[in-house]
Amino acid sequence: MAALPQVVIVGGGFAGLDAARRLRHVRCEVTIVDRHNHHVFQPLLYQVATAALSPGDIASPIRWILRKQQRLRVLLANVQRVDPNARTIILDRGDPVPYDFLIVCAGVTHSYFGHDDWSRIAPGLKTLDDALAMRRRMLLAFEEAELEKSPARQRFLLTFVIIGGGPTGVELAGALAEIARHALRQEFDAVDPASARIILVEAGPSILPAFPESLRESANRSLERLGVEVRTGTPVTSVAEGAVQIGDERVEAHTIRWAAGVAAETISRDLGPNLDRAGRVIVNPDLSVPGRPEIFVAGDMASFSHQTGKPLPGVAQVAKQEGARAAANVARLIAGQPTAPFHYIDPGNMATIGRNSAIADFGFLRVSGYLGWLLWLFVHILFLIGFRNRLSVMLQWAMAYLTYQRSVRLITRDPAG
Amino acid sequence: MAALPQVVIVGGGFAGLDAARRLRHVRCEVTIVDRHNHHVFQPLLYQVATAALSPGDIASPIRWILRKQQRLRVLLANVQRVDPNARTIILDRGDPVPYDFLIVCAGVTHSYFGHDDWSRIAPGLKTLDDALAMRRRMLLAFEEAELEKSPARQRFLLTFVIIGGGPTGVELAGALAEIARHALRQEFDAVDPASARIILVEAGPSILPAFPESLRESANRSLERLGVEVRTGTPVTSVAEGAVQIGDERVEAHTIRWAAGVAAETISRDLGPNLDRAGRVIVNPDLSVPGRPEIFVAGDMASFSHQTGKPLPGVAQVAKQEGARAAANVARLIAGQPTAPFHYIDPGNMATIGRNSAIADFGFLRVSGYLGWLLWLFVHILFLIGFRNRLSVMLQWAMAYLTYQRSVRLITRDPAG
Repeated sequence: MAALPQVVIVGGGFAGLDAARRLRHVRCEVTIVDRHNHHVFQPLLYQVATAALSPGDIASPIRWILRKQQRLRVLLANVQRVDPNARTIILDRGDPVPYDFLIVCAGVTHSYFGHDDWSRIAPGLKTLDDALAMRRRMLLAFEEAELEKSPARQRFLLTFVIIGGGPTGVELAGALAEIARHALRQEFDAVDPASARIILVEAGPSILPAFPESLRESANRSLERLGVEVRTGTPVTSVAEGAVQIGDERVEAHTIRWAAGVAAETISRDLGPNLDRAGRVIVNPDLSVPGRPEIFVAGDMASFSHQTGKPLPGVAQVAKQEGARAAANVARLIAGQPTAPFHYIDPGNMATIGRNSAIADFGFLRVSGYLGWLLWLFVHILFLIGFRNRLSVMLQWAMAYLTYQRSVRLITRDPAG
Repeated sequence: MAALPQVVIVGGGFAGLDAARRLRHVRCEVTIVDRHNHHVFQPLLYQVATAALSPGDIASPIRWILRKQQRLRVLLANVQRVDPNARTIILDRGDPVPYDFLIVCAGVTHSYFGHDDWSRIAPGLKTLDDALAMRRRMLLAFEEAELEKSPARQRFLLTFVIIGGGPTGVELAGALAEIARHALRQEFDAVDPASARIILVEAGPSILPAFPESLRESANRSLERLGVEVRTGTPVTSVAEGAVQIGDERVEAHTIRWAAGVAAETISRDLGPNLDRAGRVIVNPDLSVPGRPEIFVAGDMASFSHQTGKPLPGVAQVAKQEGARAAANVARLIAGQPTAPFHYIDPGNMATIGRNSAIADFGFLRVSGYLGWLLWLFVHILFLIGFRNRLSVMLQWAMAYLTYQRSVRLITRDPAG
């Protein structure tokens, strides 16, 4: 028997997992490599950051998700380089891994527009570690303020600046306002958590530019009701420890978070030269890399403009469908058939603001407010990976809703140590 | 109106919380200080370490637990020193805190019997951070073994040594054996997790010395059935990075954990000179410190021998009852009454071994095996603090039991980074 074709998938996010699943009944051996041992349901990362959910509620080990799949192995490693000529990927540990077909779903990180030094002061929200670090910083800020005598320093500790008015920024600002105004109320003695200042900055003319105007306005009103200061049309021109320059104004803030800009993970450079300005790979209609028919790119790292003339957005649904299409095309090549072009079916767009307000755009239907929130809840729980998570998350949200409490407000890693 | 008496409680463990609760309706102002923002249900810490439960399942913010109590403030800080003459405690941040009455429930840490350098290599299991670090190390050991070519190094990576045969050591060894033999089975390609070697070392003649002989034997059989190697009567004479000397044998092990010995937290020295060899404060019958009628000690840091002639064990029930008694005595002093002696009511003793075996000793009743496990489950869920936790833990245990899976096997903090 001839050796089976070797298919290597880089990344265990939405695209990588759906690619792996699509190859379940294909005669090949699959290797999936990720730098973390778990898949994260990224749209809910901000809920971990604001202490509404536990890491275990939105993440599952990749091995566990794929445990029933035959002829598949999972490697925990960092991919340092792709060598398309030798058809191997080079890891930070262990031997290089050869492939016959490669599906790269390594995603994106934040772009600091040339100011990479800002990343230390204003980190993003891409991993569980980011979320736990943010949670720790936020909770410790309230604790420190409680012990603080100077009103000026109390104000500084309780000022939060979120840079970037896309869904992540909006959801994070809303959740932060909610924990300060409701969950922590009355638990502190020397400070009033409700006095916390939350500023959401967007360089463009409006928050949530991907949504239609009526829903954007609804989101704006919801944020205002929660007391979030929204600054649009004002770019951030400097970020330093404890201070942000927003247009003409200098704001002193203990916690600064970045939710703007997109830059492909660096291994996209090995798949050039067809890269867009963010380093994403400009792919063929079948998601393959120009000149490399055995390499496909799916998810946030792919720049796919063949359908609408502009790149598809970096959302979970695009990633899942691209991952499945890339794998299906690998299966076709293995079977000696030509590949098929990718076609995205848009299921709609959603964002949530605080406890019971959200906006949802399904093209034919636009909803906001409480109904939007129920829909958002339903869709997100539906797509959560793993049955346990779904049950547990539903239970916790029900409790949080009834009690207004954040149940997992735990500061780990020796805060006062 | 005269100022209310100031009562300061050091430590938010079982003793500290029950002391605070007991003062709810007493005319005084209470300050509770802890170095963590959360209370941990310590008897289940090993479940977090072995990825069966999330930190949020066994811990709750102290502020949240006590949120309804009036005239109480919570400070997140490390107590560096007690100054009994000035009647103040000195924190690592903020001003010194004066007290009229002090209840110290600062607990104990592990004793390395003069080998403090071993603590870095063989840490204990006292905090959420300890548990998360252990989880990370264990899961990464399996991942590394999967990428490893050398069988000798694979064996090394999958060897776990637990030092100390008390309840913590036994429960940890049992849970480790279970995750290796069941939960991880079939998820790996190059290694067999079931080949993991788990060694439990006890210097004394038997594990679980606090239990009657019949139950000890039952525990031994359960551990053997899970494939745990139990070494009794063999002291550990040396601990180095990657190797333990057990009697005459040198065992090479990637993961070494310490569950032996007891040493009071260092601030007990400020309450001397009546300390036992472990640094615990030898208290009066009313739990006060000899010569300091305004200072009480409760929980693991107290050495109380007035009832049985030997010190009460360092278990949750003793701590809770002592905390309540210390606070009741403070209330009596505030009311101008004499203090009352402490009397411990023993509700029994339990330990669990793996998935469905436990031993329980209630004096009049001794059970082991499956019935013991059900009892253990019931009692532990009953005493978990906070309603959310109880529901969530029950649900997760039910799922884990049905599926044999560990749902929260997440490695955080950039393992391959």
